[in-house]
Amino acid sequence: MTLAQALFSPRAVALVGASGDAAKNTARPQRYLRKLGYRGGIFPVNPARSVVLELPCFKNLLEIKSNIDHAFIMVEDVEGALEDCGRRGVPVASVFSDGFADAGAEGMARQARLAARARQLGVRLLGPNSMGVINLPGRVALTVNAVLEMDAPTAGTASIVSQSGTMLGTVLSRGAARGLGFAKLVSVGNEADLGVGELVELLAADPETRLILLFLETVRDAARLAAGARAAHAAGKPVVAYKLGRSRLGERLARSHTGALAGADAALDAYFRDCGILRVDLLETLIEIAPLLSGRRPPQLARAPRVAVVTTTGGGAATVVDRLGTHGIETAAPGTDSPIVDLTMSATSATYAATLDELLEFPGCDAVLAVVGSSAQFHPQLAVEPILAAKRGDKPLAAFFTPQAERSLALLAEAGIAAFRTPEACADAFRSYFSWRTPKAPGNEPKIEWPGNLPRKGALNEVQGLQLFAALGVPVVESAIARAPEYAHSLPYPVAVKIISDAVAHKTEVGGVMLGIGNEMDLRKRIQDLHHAAPGQALENVLIQKMEQGLAEAIVGYRDDPVVGPLVLVGAGGTLAELYNDVVLRMAPVDVEEALEMIGQVKGFAILRGYRGLPPGDVEALARAVAALSRLALLAGRPVREAEANPLIVKRDGAVAVDALAVMKEE
Amino acid sequence: MTLAQALFSPRAVALVGASGDAAKNTARPQRYLRKLGYRGGIFPVNPARSVVLELPCFKNLLEIKSNIDHAFIMVEDVEGALEDCGRRGVPVASVFSDGFADAGAEGMARQARLAARARQLGVRLLGPNSMGVINLPGRVALTVNAVLEMDAPTAGTASIVSQSGTMLGTVLSRGAARGLGFAKLVSVGNEADLGVGELVELLAADPETRLILLFLETVRDAARLAAGARAAHAAGKPVVAYKLGRSRLGERLARSHTGALAGADAALDAYFRDCGILRVDLLETLIEIAPLLSGRRPPQLARAPRVAVVTTTGGGAATVVDRLGTHGIETAAPGTDSPIVDLTMSATSATYAATLDELLEFPGCDAVLAVVGSSAQFHPQLAVEPILAAKRGDKPLAAFFTPQAERSLALLAEAGIAAFRTPEACADAFRSYFSWRTPKAPGNEPKIEWPGNLPRKGALNEVQGLQLFAALGVPVVESAIARAPEYAHSLPYPVAVKIISDAVAHKTEVGGVMLGIGNEMDLRKRIQDLHHAAPGQALENVLIQKMEQGLAEAIVGYRDDPVVGPLVLVGAGGTLAELYNDVVLRMAPVDVEEALEMIGQVKGFAILRGYRGLPPGDVEALARAVAALSRLALLAGRPVREAEANPLIVKRDGAVAVDALAVMKEE
Repeated sequence: MTLAQALFSPRAVALVGASGDAAKNTARPQRYLRKLGYRGGIFPVNPARSVVLELPCFKNLLEIKSNIDHAFIMVEDVEGALEDCGRRGVPVASVFSDGFADAGAEGMARQARLAARARQLGVRLLGPNSMGVINLPGRVALTVNAVLEMDAPTAGTASIVSQSGTMLGTVLSRGAARGLGFAKLVSVGNEADLGVGELVELLAADPETRLILLFLETVRDAARLAAGARAAHAAGKPVVAYKLGRSRLGERLARSHTGALAGADAALDAYFRDCGILRVDLLETLIEIAPLLSGRRPPQLARAPRVAVVTTTGGGAATVVDRLGTHGIETAAPGTDSPIVDLTMSATSATYAATLDELLEFPGCDAVLAVVGSSAQFHPQLAVEPILAAKRGDKPLAAFFTPQAERSLALLAEAGIAAFRTPEACADAFRSYFSWRTPKAPGNEPKIEWPGNLPRKGALNEVQGLQLFAALGVPVVESAIARAPEYAHSLPYPVAVKIISDAVAHKTEVGGVMLGIGNEMDLRKRIQDLHHAAPGQALENVLIQKMEQGLAEAIVGYRDDPVVGPLVLVGAGGTLAELYNDVVLRMAPVDVEEALEMIGQVKGFAILRGYRGLPPGDVEALARAVAALSRLALLAGRPVREAEANPLIVKRDGAVAVDALAVMKEE
Repeated sequence: MTLAQALFSPRAVALVGASGDAAKNTARPQRYLRKLGYRGGIFPVNPARSVVLELPCFKNLLEIKSNIDHAFIMVEDVEGALEDCGRRGVPVASVFSDGFADAGAEGMARQARLAARARQLGVRLLGPNSMGVINLPGRVALTVNAVLEMDAPTAGTASIVSQSGTMLGTVLSRGAARGLGFAKLVSVGNEADLGVGELVELLAADPETRLILLFLETVRDAARLAAGARAAHAAGKPVVAYKLGRSRLGERLARSHTGALAGADAALDAYFRDCGILRVDLLETLIEIAPLLSGRRPPQLARAPRVAVVTTTGGGAATVVDRLGTHGIETAAPGTDSPIVDLTMSATSATYAATLDELLEFPGCDAVLAVVGSSAQFHPQLAVEPILAAKRGDKPLAAFFTPQAERSLALLAEAGIAAFRTPEACADAFRSYFSWRTPKAPGNEPKIEWPGNLPRKGALNEVQGLQLFAALGVPVVESAIARAPEYAHSLPYPVAVKIISDAVAHKTEVGGVMLGIGNEMDLRKRIQDLHHAAPGQALENVLIQKMEQGLAEAIVGYRDDPVVGPLVLVGAGGTLAELYNDVVLRMAPVDVEEALEMIGQVKGFAILRGYRGLPPGDVEALARAVAALSRLALLAGRPVREAEANPLIVKRDGAVAVDALAVMKEE
C-alpha cells in the first residue's frame, strides 16, 4: 500500500467522530462516501453510538478488526485518535479538527507536537484543519465539504490542491456547472505533514491526473513544491496556481487566516516562474483554463505572442482583444491588417469553419481564439459545430461566447476545448499560457566558500561588503582606507570619502558621504565636515573611493526570502526609480543570459538602450554583475540575508559597484 | 409626440424591408414586436409582397394611411426610404442598413449627405448601422438583435446605450440569466444624428429609467455626453460606462470597427471623472453593478474607502479582499483587527444577520460585503435570508457567493441587492463606486482674450511661449533677448542661453541649449558653440535666461484633445519620469484645489512631500502654475492645440517655468 493509495484510494476508511445526525458536518463523510458509491469498507467510530447511518459503529479504532488505510478524524481529541492510528498501523490520517496553527502560538505548539508524534508513529497526516480528500474517478469522498451535496460531480482529469477547504468546493461546484470534471481534490489545511509540494509530487505520478491546479494562500515549503512542479513537468502535466496576496491587505489576510508566513507577491511571481508553475490572476481562469493547457508544453516564444481571432461579433471580440493588448499580446491574421477576422452578419458555419482552419494553420500566430455571438445562445449545436470540427494540432484553441450560453460552453467542455465566460478570464488564460516557462533545473553549481577573513554575523561594513562583492566577481570601485590625522592615500583625485561603520547603512541620509573631492586640502576639510555631520562616529579610518562617472545608476540586490528562498533583483537606481519600484526579481543564482532578460524588463534602463539618442550603456557588464551578485545563493550555508549594490554605475564600457551593503542572517 | 415617445414608445411603426421569411434577419423586428406584445400598429413595407407574417404589407411608406411614429429601415436604398419618411412626416427613423461611416471614406461621405438630408426633412435618425431600440416595459422591439429569441426578458429599471449592437444582446442575455431586468436598450450605430449624449439626456428624463449603462467604443460628442451625464446626475441616475480601448490594440480595433476617432484611454478616464460617469473595468461589472448604485450619490470620501466584510468562508472572502486591496480599498470591522469577520463553521442565520446589521450600522465603514460559501448553492433561501433581512440604509451592500449559486443570485437580484459572480467584478464594482465623483458644473468663467501681439498660427517660439504662459499667470523664468555681435543683456550670471526658433521644439536634443554660463566671456564662447551645434540657425538673437535651481522638475502640459476636449497634465519631470509616464490628467481648466489633488497622485512628487527626509517643495506654487496653464482652455476660440512647460522648476518657495512650448491648432 503506497501513500498515494492510502490517501486517495483506501480500501477501508475509519470516520472518527462520525455522527448519525444527517444534519451535522460530521455525518457528511459517510453520506458522501455512500453517495459517490465508495466500494471499500466504511467504519464509523463514536463511543456514544453502536450504529451510525445504518452501519455498525465502533468505540475506537482499536475495536475495528479490519485493516484501515485511512482515518478521517473529526474529534477534539486528535492526539488520542492519532495514538490509536499508530497502534492499528493506519498509514494516513486526515484531520478535520482545528485548533492548531490556525489558533495562535499555543495551537502552533500543539501542531508541532502532533506532527512529531505522527512521525514517531509512522502515520502520515493530512491537515489538521483540512476538509479532506475527494477522488472522483475512485468514488472516494473523505470530506466534510458541503459541495458534495450537489448532483453527482463529473470525474475528469484535472486535480486540485487547495489551502482553503471551502475554495475546493468553489472550484468543484463552478467547474461542474461548466461541465468540467476533476480527478483528485485535496484540502491541505495547516500542512503539518503532507504539504502542497508532496501532493503535487503524488499527483505528478497519478495516472488519472493530467493537470494540477493550486489554490494557495502561502507557500510553506518552496523547495518541495519546486521539486513537485519539476516532476509534474517531466510527466507532461501543467501546474497552475491562483495565489492570494496580490495586495498587502490580501497578504495580511492570508497570514491571519492560516497562521502562515506570507511572501511578497513579486517574490512569488519569480518563484512560480522558476518552477514552471503558471500563475493565473482571476479565480475563474483557474477553473476554466484546464482544456487550454492539457497535454501542452511551455511555449517559450522569443517575441511577443500572437493570437488570431475570428468572430461573429466585432464588439464581443474587441472585449477580449483589448484585454490581450493590455497583457502585451498581439493579434495576427493572414492577409489582413485588422486585429480580427470579423464575420459579423456574414458568418455561415462553413465560412466560420474554413476561417478557423486557416487560422489554426497560419504560421504567423501562436494560438487561436473563436468568438461567437448570439448564436451560441440560441443555436448551440450550430454555433459550436465549426469549433468542434476544427483541425486541432499543436496550437491552443479557445472560445469566448458573448451571450449567456451554458449549453455551448458545456458542448465545448465535453470536447475538451477551452471556453471562457468572461473576456477577462479568456485573456488572463492566454497571458498565463504565454508566460509559462520550463522549470529551471536545480542548480548543481559548486558551493562557494565564505571569504575567510569576513565576519559571518551582523552587518558587513562597506569595506567588507566591497570585498565580498569582489570575491563573487562583481566589479567594485577602487578604494583605499585613509587614517587620521593625515588621511594619506594613493588614489587619484577626484575622490569620494565615506564613514566606515556597520551601523550606518544609509550613509547618505546621515551625511556620511562626501562626493567629488578635488584635492588633498579639500579632503581634510570635508572630513572635518563629516565630524559635524555624523557626530560620535569614529573617524580614525575613512574610506576613500575613486569618483566614478557613468551613463546610469542601477541597483543590484539579493535577498534570501524566508518563503521562496534566494532572490536577485536589478532595477534602475536613484530616488525616482525607487518610487516607481522599477525592479525585476528572479530566483538566484541567475546566469548572464537570464540577467540580460531581467535588465530588458526594467523600464528605466531604456536610457541605456539608446532612448532619445542617449549613448548606449554596457548592459552586458551590468548583467555580469547581476549574475555575480546572485552567486551569494551559492555560498555554503547561505549566510547572507540581504545584500545590495546601490548604486552600481553603468558606463559606456563596464559597470562598477560604488557602494556595498550586506547583512547576515540572525543565528 | 416627443422625440422620446417616437423613439421608445411609438404608436405605430413601419418596418421598411420587412421579410416574410422567418429565418431572415429582416423578419425579426416584426416577430419580436409580436413576441413582446406590442400594442401599436405594425406596418411592414416591401414592394415584392402583399402580406408579411400575416400582416398586410405596403409597397412604400406613402401607401400607409395611418400616422407612423417610427420607421425601422432595413433596405439598401436608405436614402429613398428617408425621403418617404420626410414626406409622410415620420419623426424618427432607425437605420439598420450599413455601408456608411463603417465603410471607409466613401461611406463616410454618404453618411454626411444622409444626415444633412434628414435634418432638412425634420426626421431624426438612429444609426445607420444600428441594431435598433428595445423598450421592455413598453413592449417595443424595433430591433434585429437575435437576443430577443430568448424567453421573455425581464423589464427593469436599468437602461443601456451601446455602440456595439451585438453587445446590447450580451448585456440583456447575461442580465436576464441573473434576474436583472432592463428598461430601454439602444444600439446607436454610427451616430449620424442621435448620439450617445442625446440618448443619455432622453433617458435622464425617462421615468422608467433609474440607471444608465453605456457600452462604448469611442466618444463622438464629448460635450453632449457630458451634458447628458449632468442631467442624469441631476435626476439622481448613475451613469456607468464600459469603454474599449484600454490597450493600443483595443483602441486600434475600436477605430477600425466603427470608423470613429479613438481617444487616449487616460484622457477618457479624466473625461468620465469630470462628467460623473463611473467607469467599470470588467464587462460583467457593467451587467451586475446596477443594484449597487441605484438611487445612490457619489460617495466622495476624503480618505481611503473602507468595506466591512462578513463571510462563511475565509478563503472566499480573501479572493475579494485581496482584489479590493489592489484597488487601494481598505477593510474595517468593529472591535477587530482582522480584515474580515469570519464566521466559517460558526455561522447561523441569526449570527450572520446580526453581524450584517452591526456592520451596516458601523460608522467606520463605507460599504458592506456579504460573502457566503456552499450554503448559497444548496440552501439558497437560508443563505440569502439574513442578507434580504438586513436593515438597508445609506450604505451600499453587496454579496459574493463562492459556489455556483444561480438561485441565490436570482433571489438577491429580485430584491434589488447587488450580487456578484466573480470576486474581481465585485471588487471592480466597489472600486468604481468609490471613485465616482459629482459631475463638474460647466465652467462659466469669462473667456480670456488672446494676447494681441502673439501669432495665432503654427508654433510659438520660446520667447512668445513664455509670454503666453506669463499672460495666463504661470510664473516664468526671467529672460532677455541678446543680439549679435555683443549679446549684451542685464541678467545676473549664471545664465542659460537658448536658440530662438519656432522650428526647434526639442532644443535640448539638437544641442540648442547651454546651461550654467558663468560670465560674459563664457557666454560669447558658448554662442560660438551653438553655431556648431545647430548649423544654419540664425543666431542674430538668442534667449538669455536666469539659471534656476530647485528641488524637483515638473512637467505641466495642456492638450486640446480631439475626442474629449481640453486637458491639463502634471507629472514628474526628467527622462526617468517620462519613461514611467508618471503623469495625472484632468479636464481643463482646473482650480488650485483640483491641481493639488492631481499633484498628490503623481508618485514622483513624493520627493516634494518630504520623502526620505528631503526638504519639502512648494506644491502650492506648482498647483497655481497648473491651474494657470489650464486656463488655456478659456482662451476665446481655444486656438492652442498643445502647450507644455518642461521643465517647470519647483523650489522651496515658488515654482518657475524655464521652458515654454505652444502649438496652435491647424486652421
